[in-house]
Amino acid sequence: MSDPEPEDPGAPGKPDRVPNGGNPDKYKEDLDLAAVYVSDAQYNRNIYFDTTPQAVRLYQLYNHWVLKVLLYFFILVNLGLAVFEEPAVITTPIWATMGAELLCLLAFTIRLVHYAKVIPRDKFWKDPKNICIIVILMLTLIDMIIYGALKSANCHALRWSRVLRPLLLVNVTEGRQLRRAFRSIRNALPQIFYVFLLFMFSVLIFSLMALKLLGLKTINGAPYFTNYLDIVFDLYVLVTTANSPDVMMPAYNASFIFAIFFILYILINTYIFMSVFLAVVYNNYKKYLKEEVRQLVRARRHKMARAFAVLQERQEGAEPVVIQERWNQLIRLVRPDISNSHRELLWSVCDDKNQGKVAFMQLADLLNIEVITLKSRPHPLQGLCPALYLSAPSRLLCRLVQHRAFVITYDLIILVNAVFIGLDEENQVIANSEWVFLSLYLLEILLKLYVFEPRGFFSKHNFWNWFDTIIVVSALVATVVNSAVKSAGVYSSRQILDIVFILRVLRLIRVVDSIQRFRAIINTLIRIGPAILTFGQLIIVVYYIFAMVGMELFKGKVKFYGDDSVDPAKAFCGNRLLEGTDFAKLNYCKNNFNNVVSSFILLVELTVVNQWHDILWGKKHLIQKKVKSTDSVPQGHWLWHASNPA
Amino acid sequence: MSDPEPEDPGAPGKPDRVPNGGNPDKYKEDLDLAAVYVSDAQYNRNIYFDTTPQAVRLYQLYNHWVLKVLLYFFILVNLGLAVFEEPAVITTPIWATMGAELLCLLAFTIRLVHYAKVIPRDKFWKDPKNICIIVILMLTLIDMIIYGALKSANCHALRWSRVLRPLLLVNVTEGRQLRRAFRSIRNALPQIFYVFLLFMFSVLIFSLMALKLLGLKTINGAPYFTNYLDIVFDLYVLVTTANSPDVMMPAYNASFIFAIFFILYILINTYIFMSVFLAVVYNNYKKYLKEEVRQLVRARRHKMARAFAVLQERQEGAEPVVIQERWNQLIRLVRPDISNSHRELLWSVCDDKNQGKVAFMQLADLLNIEVITLKSRPHPLQGLCPALYLSAPSRLLCRLVQHRAFVITYDLIILVNAVFIGLDEENQVIANSEWVFLSLYLLEILLKLYVFEPRGFFSKHNFWNWFDTIIVVSALVATVVNSAVKSAGVYSSRQILDIVFILRVLRLIRVVDSIQRFRAIINTLIRIGPAILTFGQLIIVVYYIFAMVGMELFKGKVKFYGDDSVDPAKAFCGNRLLEGTDFAKLNYCKNNFNNVVSSFILLVELTVVNQWHDILWGKKHLIQKKVKSTDSVPQGHWLWHASNPA
Repeated sequence: MSDPEPEDPGAPGKPDRVPNGGNPDKYKEDLDLAAVYVSDAQYNRNIYFDTTPQAVRLYQLYNHWVLKVLLYFFILVNLGLAVFEEPAVITTPIWATMGAELLCLLAFTIRLVHYAKVIPRDKFWKDPKNICIIVILMLTLIDMIIYGALKSANCHALRWSRVLRPLLLVNVTEGRQLRRAFRSIRNALPQIFYVFLLFMFSVLIFSLMALKLLGLKTINGAPYFTNYLDIVFDLYVLVTTANSPDVMMPAYNASFIFAIFFILYILINTYIFMSVFLAVVYNNYKKYLKEEVRQLVRARRHKMARAFAVLQERQEGAEPVVIQERWNQLIRLVRPDISNSHRELLWSVCDDKNQGKVAFMQLADLLNIEVITLKSRPHPLQGLCPALYLSAPSRLLCRLVQHRAFVITYDLIILVNAVFIGLDEENQVIANSEWVFLSLYLLEILLKLYVFEPRGFFSKHNFWNWFDTIIVVSALVATVVNSAVKSAGVYSSRQILDIVFILRVLRLIRVVDSIQRFRAIINTLIRIGPAILTFGQLIIVVYYIFAMVGMELFKGKVKFYGDDSVDPAKAFCGNRLLEGTDFAKLNYCKNNFNNVVSSFILLVELTVVNQWHDILWGKKHLIQKKVKSTDSVPQGHWLWHASNPA
Repeated sequence: MSDPEPEDPGAPGKPDRVPNGGNPDKYKEDLDLAAVYVSDAQYNRNIYFDTTPQAVRLYQLYNHWVLKVLLYFFILVNLGLAVFEEPAVITTPIWATMGAELLCLLAFTIRLVHYAKVIPRDKFWKDPKNICIIVILMLTLIDMIIYGALKSANCHALRWSRVLRPLLLVNVTEGRQLRRAFRSIRNALPQIFYVFLLFMFSVLIFSLMALKLLGLKTINGAPYFTNYLDIVFDLYVLVTTANSPDVMMPAYNASFIFAIFFILYILINTYIFMSVFLAVVYNNYKKYLKEEVRQLVRARRHKMARAFAVLQERQEGAEPVVIQERWNQLIRLVRPDISNSHRELLWSVCDDKNQGKVAFMQLADLLNIEVITLKSRPHPLQGLCPALYLSAPSRLLCRLVQHRAFVITYDLIILVNAVFIGLDEENQVIANSEWVFLSLYLLEILLKLYVFEPRGFFSKHNFWNWFDTIIVVSALVATVVNSAVKSAGVYSSRQILDIVFILRVLRLIRVVDSIQRFRAIINTLIRIGPAILTFGQLIIVVYYIFAMVGMELFKGKVKFYGDDSVDPAKAFCGNRLLEGTDFAKLNYCKNNFNNVVSSFILLVELTVVNQWHDILWGKKHLIQKKVKSTDSVPQGHWLWHASNPA
C-alpha cells in the first residue's frame, strides 16, 4: 500500500497558504484523504482502500450511512424470506420470493463491486470474506436455478442454500464486531475442547460406575440403567439438570446410598466442571478480545499517522506540524455536525500552537468522546412574557415542581395506578380512572416543560424524559382511538386494547428512574447494549442455520391440532411414532419445525434447557439423526451463559 | 495491649550472648513470644493474646493441632447427632444422644475457658464470637433440660436449639475463613438487594402484563394465568427455567404471538438479570474479599513488627537487627520440622549479614513457601549390588521404563481395561482378565520402583504416584478377599464387589495423568480445593439449619412405601392431601423431611433447581407455610452459582 507523501500542500481559497506553487486540487484531495483516514480511525474501519482521488471519493460514498442501511435492509429481507418460503408461515407464490431473493442478490453484488472498485485488486482477491460472499452468491444462484427447474417439473426440491444466508451477516464489511466475536470464540475453542474432553471422560467414568453399581434390572417393568449408552445420555442430561431428580428417584428409592452417587456426580460435573468451563471460556474469550482490541488500537494509530503524513507541513529545523486552519478544515470534513465551540475545545485539549504528531494522534479518540453542551438558556416563556413567568406564583410553581416531594407524589400515583391496572377493568369506576391517570401524567409533563427549558428537557441524553413523553402521548392517542371505536359501536379490537394496556404497564417502569441505584443499573444495562446486540446477531446466525437445517429435515413430521380439533391424531401430534411419549403427553405438539417461527421458538426452548431431553426424545422417536442436529444447542447455551460476563 | 520491650536479651546456654547481665529466663520467654508472633503471622491468626509468659505458653497449647482436631471432632459429633435424634435414621435411646451432646458442650466450654485464659479479659467480652458461643451453649443446655423434662412427662417436645449447632462451626476461633466468607457475603448483600428489587419489579410488571394479555380463562377446564399471585409464582419459577416450556405451551398453542412474550421474559429476567446478578455478586464478593486480604496483610506485618521488637538488638549508631543465632533459634521453635539447609536458604534469601527490620518482616511469607528438596540420591539397589544394577540389561530396562512408549503402552492397557470393565462380568474370561490387569499394574509400580529412587517416587508432592499405588494395592487386597470369600463358598457380599468395582474404575482415572493439559486442569482443581472446602462448610451450615427447621415442621408428613408395599396409601405418599398431585405421580415420596439424610438429599435436589416447584407444590398442598421455608433455597442456588468464580 503506497502512501502519497504531500510535498507542498496549498489552500485553494487562500493563495498565501500555497507557498511553492502547490495546486488547489491536490490540496483538496489531500484533505479528503486525511479525512477518510481520520474517520476510519474513529470508527475502527480496517479497509486498505486505494489512495487515488477517485477511489477515495468512491470509498467515502461506500461508507455513507444510507448505503449501509440499504445493505442491512436487504440482508433482513433476505433472512426474512424464510417466513414466506416453503414451509411457510404466510404462503406466497414462488415467483415472489424468488424475485425478492434475486433483488437481494443483485444488491449484494452491487455492494461487492463497489467495494472492489475501492480497494486494490490484489487486496480484494486475498480477502477471505470477499471470496466467501462471492461463493455464497454463486451457490445461492445455482440453488435457485435448480430449485426453480425442479419445482416447474413438479419434483421434490430442497432449498439448501438458505443455510448460507446468515453467513452474509458475518462477511459484509460492516460485520466487524461479529467477526471479532467469532474469531475470539474460535481462538478459545482449543482450550475449551480440553476441558470438554476431561468432562466427557468424567461422564463416561461415572456412567461405567452407574452401569455396574446401579444396574437395577427393572423399575415398574422398565429397565433402569442397564444400557451403557442410555446411561451416558441420561447423565449428560443430568449435567444440564433437566432430568433431576427423576433420574435419581428409582435408585434413591432402592437405597439412600445411591443418592450419594448422584450428589457426587452433580457436584463434580454440574458444579465444578461447569464452573471450570465458565472460567476457561471467560478467560480465553477475554484474552483474545484483548488481543483484538490491541490490534485495533495499533491500526488506529497507523491510520492517524498516515493522516498526519498527508496534512503535515515541514518547517525548517522544526518537527512537522499540522496548522490550525487545515486542522479546522479536516474536522469540518470528518464531522460536519459539530459546532465551532466544540471544535475549538478539541483544539485546545492539545495545547500546542500547531499540532505535532503526538497531539494529532489523539484526534480519533477525542472525536469519539461525547460532548454534551449544556446551555443555560432562559426559558422561552421568560422571553415572551417575563412579567408573568417571573411573578411570585410562577416561581412558587417552579420551586414546587423541582422539589423532591413532587417526584415522590408521582411515584405514589404510579403505585396507585399499578393497583388499578391489576383490578378488573370491567368495573366502570376503574375504566374511568384511566382518564384521571392519563391527565395526571400529561399534567406532569406540561409542568416540567413549564419549569425546564424545553430544548434542554428533550436533549439527546435525557433518555427518561423521552421515554415518559412518548409513552404518555401514545397511551393518550391509543386510549382516545379505543374509546372512539367503542363509542362508535364498532367491534372493539382486542389488538388496540392490548396496545393500550402494554403502554399503561410500561408507564409504571418510570418509577425506576426516581431511585438513584436503579437508574445506575439501568444505565449500565443501556451502555452494554451494543455488546449484547453483537451477541444477539451471533445467536441469530447460529439459530438461523439450525432452523434451516431442522426445517428441511423435520418439516411436517409433527403436527399441531387446534384445541377444537377432534381428530384422533391430536393425541400423538399426527405421528404414530409419538404415540404414548412424554412429548405428546406434555402437549408439546406445537414444538415443531413446520415453519421458521416455530423453529425459532423451539430452538429458544432448547436453549433454556429444561425439558430439552423430552423435546429431543420426542423427535428421536421420529428419526435418530435428530440427536446430532440439536445436541449442540445446549452447548450453545453454555457458550451463551459463559460469554455473558465477557 | 502492652508489649514488653526486650532490654537486654541473653542466651541461656551461651553466657557470652547475655551482655549486660540479662537473665536466661527472660531470653527464653522472649523467644517464645516472638515465635508465637511469627507463627500467628504465618497462619494468619488474629488473636490478641496476653503477653505474659504464662499466657503465651497457654496460647501455644491452644494452637496445638491435637486440640484443634479434637475440637472439630466434637463439632462433627455434635452435628452428626442429628442422625440419631428424633426423627432418626438410626433410632437411639435419648440418654445416649443427650449424653453425647453434653460431652460436646463440655468440650466446647473447656475450649472457651482455655481461650478466656489466653486473651485479656476485656478483649474476651468484647468479641462477639465468644458471646455467640456462650449464648449457643446456654440455649442448648436450656433446650436440653426442657426437652428432657417434657419427654419424661411424655409431652410433645421440640429440639429447637439444634438449629444453632452449625453456628458453632462459624464461631470457633478456627472458623476464620468461614467468617471471612460470611462477612464478604453480608457486605455484598446491599448491592445484591437492589438488583433483586429491580428484578422483582420486572417480574411483577411482566406478571401484570401476563394477567391482562394472556388471561385465557380455561385450558382443559383448568384456569390459566387468571390469579395474579399464581402468575408471579409461575414466572418466578420460569426464571429458574424449571417449568419451561410447560408454562408457555397453553398460550403458545393459542397464538405464537404469546410465545414472544415468554421469550422476551426469559431474555430479560433469566439471562440479562441473572447475568447482572452474577456480575454484581462476583464483583462485590471480590471487592470485599480483597479488603479482607488487605487487612490480613496489615495484621501480619504488625505481628512481624512485634516479633522483631522482641528479638532486636540495638547496636550503637546502627539500625536494630536480629542476629543470626537468635534467628536460628526462632526458626527452630516456629518450624521444628525444617532442615538446616532449608533454614540456611531462608537466611540467605535476605542477604544482610544480620537481619534488619525489612528483611525480617518477610519471614512469615518465606515460611509459607513450600521448598521441595530434590536430592539426587543413587538408587538403593545401586548401593547394594552395583554390578547388577549397572549392568547392560538393567540399564536397558531403565531406559525402557523411562521411555515415552512405556507410558503410552500403559495408557492403552487402561483403555482395554475400560472396555473389559464395561463387558459382562459373568463371563469367565473377563472375570479372569481382572487378574491379568492387576498384575500388569503391579508390574508397572514395581518397575518404576526399580528405576526411580523410592523415597523420591513417594515424596509428598508426587500425588499421582501415591494415587496409583494406593488404588492398585487396595484393588489387589479387595480382589483377593473377594475371591477368598467366593471360593470359600460363603455368601459373596455385594458390598465387597462394589468396592472392588469402584477401585477398578478409579484406576482408569490414571489415564488423565499422562496428558499434560489434563494434568494442568486437575492440578488447578486440586489447588483451589481449600477454597471449595471453605465454601462447602458454608453450604453445610445453611443446609443444616434448613434441614433442622424442615424436619421439625414436616417430619412424618410425607411417607415413603417400599416397592413391595401394597398399602393403598402408597399412591399418595401416605397423605391424602397429596392425592393426584404431580409430586405423588412423579414418585417423589422419598423426597421428605423424615430424617436428616433425606432432608439433605431433598435440599440438594432443590438446589439443583429442576422440578423444585413440583417438590414445593407437593409440600404446599400439605402446608402453606412451606413456601416460605424453602423458597430461599433456590436463591441460595444463585449465590452458590454466583460465588463460584470468586
